[in-house]
Amino acid sequence: MKATYDALCKHGYSDLTIQRIGNEFPKSKSLLYHHYDSKDELLLDFLEFMLDELEGQMPAYRDGSADEHIADIVDRTFAFGNTENNPHFTQALLELRTQAAHDEDYREYFTRSDQFVRKHIAHTIRSGIEQGVFQEVDPQETAALFQIVFVGTMTQRVTSDDDDVLREGRAMFDQCLRARLLRPE
Amino acid sequence: MKATYDALCKHGYSDLTIQRIGNEFPKSKSLLYHHYDSKDELLLDFLEFMLDELEGQMPAYRDGSADEHIADIVDRTFAFGNTENNPHFTQALLELRTQAAHDEDYREYFTRSDQFVRKHIAHTIRSGIEQGVFQEVDPQETAALFQIVFVGTMTQRVTSDDDDVLREGRAMFDQCLRARLLRPE
Repeated sequence: MKATYDALCKHGYSDLTIQRIGNEFPKSKSLLYHHYDSKDELLLDFLEFMLDELEGQMPAYRDGSADEHIADIVDRTFAFGNTENNPHFTQALLELRTQAAHDEDYREYFTRSDQFVRKHIAHTIRSGIEQGVFQEVDPQETAALFQIVFVGTMTQRVTSDDDDVLREGRAMFDQCLRARLLRPE
Repeated sequence: MKATYDALCKHGYSDLTIQRIGNEFPKSKSLLYHHYDSKDELLLDFLEFMLDELEGQMPAYRDGSADEHIADIVDRTFAFGNTENNPHFTQALLELRTQAAHDEDYREYFTRSDQFVRKHIAHTIRSGIEQGVFQEVDPQETAALFQIVFVGTMTQRVTSDDDDVLREGRAMFDQCLRARLLRPE
C-alpha cells in the first residue's frame, strides 16, 4: 500500500501504471502483477485500505466534547492537502474521485466513504446536542454541509492558485457554525 | 463552440479528440484542424468563451435587491448540473477542472474564472450591506465560502450517488446564511 501511495504521489492517476507501482515495491513484483489485472483494481483496493484505516481511527474520537471534536474536523477539512498531507496525494485523490464521474466502481466507493464520514459527523452533532453545546440542528443536514465543504476545499486547493479562498472561506464557515450550531454562551 | 460542447457531453474529457469535435462540426473541418494543434488548446478557448458569456450576463444582475440575487445564486449553485445544465456537461467540466491539478494553463484559467465569480458575489454582498438587508459581514470571506460550496456541490454531484447530500447540505447552508448574513427582521 505504501508503494501505491508513493507511485500515486509521483505520477498522479493518469500516468500511473501497475509497472510504476511495482517500481516502488521492494518485494516480489511478480506477486503484484499476478494479483491485479488493472491499475484500477489495485487503486480500489488501496482506497478500501484507507477507508479501513479511517474507520479504525474514528472510535478514538468517541470520547471528549463534541464541540472540540467538530473544531478538529473543521481544522482537518481546511488543512487537507496543505501541511499534514502530501499535496501530490491530494491531487491524486481528486483525480481518483473524478474517475467516479464515469466509473461505477469508483462511484460506489466514494458514495460509501462519504456516507461513513457523514454518519460519523452526524453522530458527533447528535452528541453535542445531548451535551448541550450545540443548538437543535438537524444532524444529517449539518453533516451534509460538512461533506460539501470538504470536497469543495479539496477541489479548490488543487485546481486553483488562489490560496486566499480557503483561508477566507474558512473564516466565514467558522462564523456560520458559531451563529447556527454553537449554543450562545 | 456548440460542437465542442456537444462533443464534451458525449465523450467526456479523456475520450475527447479534435476529430470527435470535428464530427459535431457542420462546416469545414479542415479549418478546425488547421486552427488547433491540441484538444487542450481548443478546450481552453471554449472555456474562455463560456467565461465571456458569463461576464456578459452579470451586468443584468446589477439592479434589484441583493438578497434576491443571493437567493438566486444559492439556487443556481445547488441546481448546477441537475435540471438547467446537462449532467454530462457538469461531469466534463469537473474533468476539465481536475486537469488544473497538473496543467498550468487550466489552473490559470480556473483561478481567473473563480476570481471573477468571487468578485461578483462580493459586490452583491457589499450592495446588500449598503441596502441594509445583510449584516456587516466581510464580503470577500462570504464570497470565498460560496466559491468552496460551489465547487463542492459540483464535485459531489458527479462523483457520488448520494443525492440527499445536496438537498440536506443546502438546507443547512440556507440556515447558516440566515443566521449570519441576513439581517434579523
